[in-house]
Amino acid sequence: MKALMKTRPAAGAELCEVPIPELASHDVLVEVRTASICGTDLHIYNWDASMRNRIKPPLIFGHEFCGVVARVGSEVSAVHPSDFVSAEMHVACGHCLQCRVGQQHICQNLQIIGIDRDGCFAQYVKIPESNIWPLDSAIPADYGAVLDPLGNAVHTVLAGEIAGLTVAVLGCGPIGLFALQLARACGASAVYAVEVKQPRIQLARQLGATVVFDPNKDDVVGAIRAATGGTGVDVVLEMSGHPQAIRQGFQILRAGGRMSLLGLPDQRVELDLVNDVIFKGITVQGIYGRRMYDTWYRMLALLKVGALNLEPLISARLPLENYAQAFALLNAGEACKVLLYPNGLPK
Amino acid sequence: MKALMKTRPAAGAELCEVPIPELASHDVLVEVRTASICGTDLHIYNWDASMRNRIKPPLIFGHEFCGVVARVGSEVSAVHPSDFVSAEMHVACGHCLQCRVGQQHICQNLQIIGIDRDGCFAQYVKIPESNIWPLDSAIPADYGAVLDPLGNAVHTVLAGEIAGLTVAVLGCGPIGLFALQLARACGASAVYAVEVKQPRIQLARQLGATVVFDPNKDDVVGAIRAATGGTGVDVVLEMSGHPQAIRQGFQILRAGGRMSLLGLPDQRVELDLVNDVIFKGITVQGIYGRRMYDTWYRMLALLKVGALNLEPLISARLPLENYAQAFALLNAGEACKVLLYPNGLPK
Amino acid sequence: MKALMKTRPAAGAELCEVPIPELASHDVLVEVRTASICGTDLHIYNWDASMRNRIKPPLIFGHEFCGVVARVGSEVSAVHPSDFVSAEMHVACGHCLQCRVGQQHICQNLQIIGIDRDGCFAQYVKIPESNIWPLDSAIPADYGAVLDPLGNAVHTVLAGEIAGLTVAVLGCGPIGLFALQLARACGASAVYAVEVKQPRIQLARQLGATVVFDPNKDDVVGAIRAATGGTGVDVVLEMSGHPQAIRQGFQILRAGGRMSLLGLPDQRVELDLVNDVIFKGITVQGIYGRRMYDTWYRMLALLKVGALNLEPLISARLPLENYAQAFALLNAGEACKVLLYPNGLPK
Amino acid sequence: MKALMKTRPAAGAELCEVPIPELASHDVLVEVRTASICGTDLHIYNWDASMRNRIKPPLIFGHEFCGVVARVGSEVSAVHPSDFVSAEMHVACGHCLQCRVGQQHICQNLQIIGIDRDGCFAQYVKIPESNIWPLDSAIPADYGAVLDPLGNAVHTVLAGEIAGLTVAVLGCGPIGLFALQLARACGASAVYAVEVKQPRIQLARQLGATVVFDPNKDDVVGAIRAATGGTGVDVVLEMSGHPQAIRQGFQILRAGGRMSLLGLPDQRVELDLVNDVIFKGITVQGIYGRRMYDTWYRMLALLKVGALNLEPLISARLPLENYAQAFALLNAGEACKVLLYPNGLPK
Repeated sequence: MKALMKTRPAAGAELCEVPIPELASHDVLVEVRTASICGTDLHIYNWDASMRNRIKPPLIFGHEFCGVVARVGSEVSAVHPSDFVSAEMHVACGHCLQCRVGQQHICQNLQIIGIDRDGCFAQYVKIPESNIWPLDSAIPADYGAVLDPLGNAVHTVLAGEIAGLTVAVLGCGPIGLFALQLARACGASAVYAVEVKQPRIQLARQLGATVVFDPNKDDVVGAIRAATGGTGVDVVLEMSGHPQAIRQGFQILRAGGRMSLLGLPDQRVELDLVNDVIFKGITVQGIYGRRMYDTWYRMLALLKVGALNLEPLISARLPLENYAQAFALLNAGEACKVLLYPNGLPK
Repeated sequence: MKALMKTRPAAGAELCEVPIPELASHDVLVEVRTASICGTDLHIYNWDASMRNRIKPPLIFGHEFCGVVARVGSEVSAVHPSDFVSAEMHVACGHCLQCRVGQQHICQNLQIIGIDRDGCFAQYVKIPESNIWPLDSAIPADYGAVLDPLGNAVHTVLAGEIAGLTVAVLGCGPIGLFALQLARACGASAVYAVEVKQPRIQLARQLGATVVFDPNKDDVVGAIRAATGGTGVDVVLEMSGHPQAIRQGFQILRAGGRMSLLGLPDQRVELDLVNDVIFKGITVQGIYGRRMYDTWYRMLALLKVGALNLEPLISARLPLENYAQAFALLNAGEACKVLLYPNGLPK
Repeated sequence: MKALMKTRPAAGAELCEVPIPELASHDVLVEVRTASICGTDLHIYNWDASMRNRIKPPLIFGHEFCGVVARVGSEVSAVHPSDFVSAEMHVACGHCLQCRVGQQHICQNLQIIGIDRDGCFAQYVKIPESNIWPLDSAIPADYGAVLDPLGNAVHTVLAGEIAGLTVAVLGCGPIGLFALQLARACGASAVYAVEVKQPRIQLARQLGATVVFDPNKDDVVGAIRAATGGTGVDVVLEMSGHPQAIRQGFQILRAGGRMSLLGLPDQRVELDLVNDVIFKGITVQGIYGRRMYDTWYRMLALLKVGALNLEPLISARLPLENYAQAFALLNAGEACKVLLYPNGLPK
Repeated sequence: MKALMKTRPAAGAELCEVPIPELASHDVLVEVRTASICGTDLHIYNWDASMRNRIKPPLIFGHEFCGVVARVGSEVSAVHPSDFVSAEMHVACGHCLQCRVGQQHICQNLQIIGIDRDGCFAQYVKIPESNIWPLDSAIPADYGAVLDPLGNAVHTVLAGEIAGLTVAVLGCGPIGLFALQLARACGASAVYAVEVKQPRIQLARQLGATVVFDPNKDDVVGAIRAATGGTGVDVVLEMSGHPQAIRQGFQILRAGGRMSLLGLPDQRVELDLVNDVIFKGITVQGIYGRRMYDTWYRMLALLKVGALNLEPLISARLPLENYAQAFALLNAGEACKVLLYPNGLPK
């Protein structure tokens, strides 16, 4: 089969011909229809410092996809050939404390398909049965390729109360834009978005942000405090990973509010714990992955009912062979989500 | 001032001329712009058995309204003349355990304005400062008159998780219809409504019910189980008070689900606790009043952002003098909410 | 191996010689050191009506035990021969909605070892790897045989807040007595016990009940209301299954309190939902099984630290061969927990 | 009356003769029996930098006490002369969002008696009726003087689950020692304490710490990880305010755990949000004051039942006149809690 591989510890990737994966008894082989490129994939492609200790070439990367079940292992019972599916790409060990008490998303021995083992930028990908999630035919097919980042957003938005509350979304990359839409769909009474890049500001407006603030031009803290009568917002969803945004997030959060951190800063962050956390009695949540599989259940239900319009976030659709063009679009900073088709573009 | 009073222990009511209420130091006098008739008011008017021990004539009844502050007591600081306001009509004692631990809505010594003391079917009504809630000018004025029942619905819908979940609303009177809309606005993935009366069935469809079932025609339990793949719904909101509906509600609820009971059955109800509650590991909530004032905060935020369209539920608008016509409309079972204007119809 | 079997649909049981179970790849074979008799086992032995449709002879019954791992299946990785273990005997399907969202204890396809398949009243029992729980050597060995009912109690007590709260335990059978001790160990400020049988009343007093009430002699509702200043208790743990006790439980619960139902009434129960549930704004929880495996984690931690003294609840220790004597003790209503030793009494 | 006052912006204090406070209609005058010195009082006495902008002399300081009601204002209904009481010294405004939604402890306009207005280092103190909490005669009288810091500990310990969980308490000053005892009384399965001062290490051992670690001698992170099988503790209660302890706290917390921050660092703290918060999916809580009045209700219930032994924490008892000796003891770092008696030592 064709597969996009990181063949050596350097920038770039290679389209290779490799054998279709062998299945163990609980594995499922999926023919990949649509794959999607994550920010992490861009780091892998560019061979950024953060990936050099994690990725062990040769590796087929890619961890966002949907496709059709081609074959199942001998003990698989709940998944069947021809099922249209996506998958949770975080594989939990099942034995650590976290796995035993229902927190598999923070398993102590977590492995990620497409990072720690071969992923989905290929014609076929091997997935453990337990990680497969079937897709309802009412959901647009390509939406199934972005459930990993959409699930991040669902996990974040639903990690606390949201209905009838004011929300700030810091950073309007794909996950921030998903979160913005989700917050609206789940009854947030106002969603203030913060973003610096012009195309993302436009998308945030288009997708329903109450106001979009640009920290390069606006006094974000002052403006959001003013918009909330001086009180601050009930919920901050931090999707940017920028230390300055994180600190501003603490300042615009109301006493008693919720701060959900998903964006990954590339350095330590200095915080005013006394005034921003303790005296204000707030709750800070670290958010990682997706809850297995509560997040998936509710995400798919929201998609099935048409609560979300993901189409505006899809910037380009390309055959897998055009991967270089895809990564170039993302490196240029213009694209939001770029889809790849290892088995040909849809008709 | 003009006031609609229950003057004696018998059916009917009288429009009387009475003095404007005197204010104590923490009281607020509100000029009533719009009042709304509750099902309880209809029981009072008809002098139904359930009200005979509770209501002590003479009494100005009515407990749903909005209006303009006319005057404030000597120690009132947060409410000002000319403020446009509504009010929580449940007055908590402030001293019992429930009041001390943030559960004033189930105060042991609760008094209700319009039931236990003079209410709002009058040109003016006296309200303790703490119970006043200011209304944003972005909210349609008459919506302020139905915040009591809307608050019941908000309290019920937000008493647990709702986003991305399947919901059944049993009974589509005003509170059921509010709950239906709220559930949709807060991200419910499906809302199955159950109702027997044709006009309410139409309203439920119009307001976004996924399917409306009529227990006189449909196999409600079978149909809702089928619609949820045999699993049952995640959440049941019981607004009917009918014993049969309550029992069906337990049957259509999935194991691990939430059953929120707000409708008041007029008799004891026999339940299969083993199969419907214990083996299924469900949670049953008794819902009463509105949380003071978390419910109000979130309700007003949802209204301000335009998440709810209440206009279709308003069946008639009449001057207070036409009260007999108003109660006749409700007794005929055709009307949903009927509004009364003690100081004249709006222009 | 020796095994106590239900060989036909009639009262009694037979000690049989049967083959040691074969293991599938994910199974574990445990040599049973101590087994314990549940109330359900007594119903099976007596062939009570409630069991006749559920139990399909021939069956080795028994579902409370601890022992030493004798052998493991080919794909077992986290359990090893010689491990001293107990097991969760509820086997979840892993595929239904409840299993997928972390509620395996209310799996739609639950099977119980010792009810739906061969159990632990035998020299060896076969258990799926995922259901094995290792036992710390600091815990008295026989305690490992009563983790199933102790886990019911842990699940119930920890299903809501308990520290600094007043609690009533209705019914002081083994699970009620466990719950009483647990509530004290977890900071309950008062534990009122309700029980009719004299030996259990004595045990409840010995194990720390604040007061024990006998409904045949005491005005339970009046006394508990008086003891709580008229307010009622914060938490009711219903372990009796008696309709009258359940109704009293609702009456002694304070507005805003928690009612956790575990005892199984043998008939439908008529409830005053309006006054006892809705106006009081309470929460009612159906409790079944044990949370997998949050309950186990916390239960074992509490045992390891010596928070619980289970010895007074163990009424007799007998070799498996003396099963008739064991069941007779329980039928006489004098015994609390009776232990059976399929591989000989401990030295 | 005699009162200990901060008369000017400099170190020290003066014992003055001042008029007994006048009461407004909702005020209560309490004759102070026992007062207690907080760490904040020491900062005020020493005129440390942190207090210079907050304290406006002349001021009677002191905010931990119990006493007997001497007189009540004209509209006070729930407090009576001769009641033995303590009080919540944080006075909430009642009007801000936080006050309206049940979070008065983080009121936007909070005033503290003894900081922002005259306090309890005097023969009498004036308290708003709503802030008075009656004391049961079963509770040792002097315990009533330390409910402010004990309430901090109760608020912290009960801010999440604690029963059956492993806990680390960082910093064994009075609040840390209270928290340690509370965690044990509420079912924590292990409580690891971290402290540098020898007398506090001794007290921590005496009060039930599983192990006490001294960061000057022990590898705290390594030792606690080892003690928890490499997983880390379920709950960290941060009472020290030391940046290094805070960072270590994040390292010893297990993925999915709870970090409750109460200690106030005197500088910004640099955190590794990616590895210590986000990837681990933990929850961080800022803890301030006491929940009004849920914390009080449960604290008093725990005290009434004898769950806590506070006597070992009381280092000295002195008449108010000996205040200089009291502050000297605390400045020497040897004392834990020092009690002052404005109306004479108890007989």
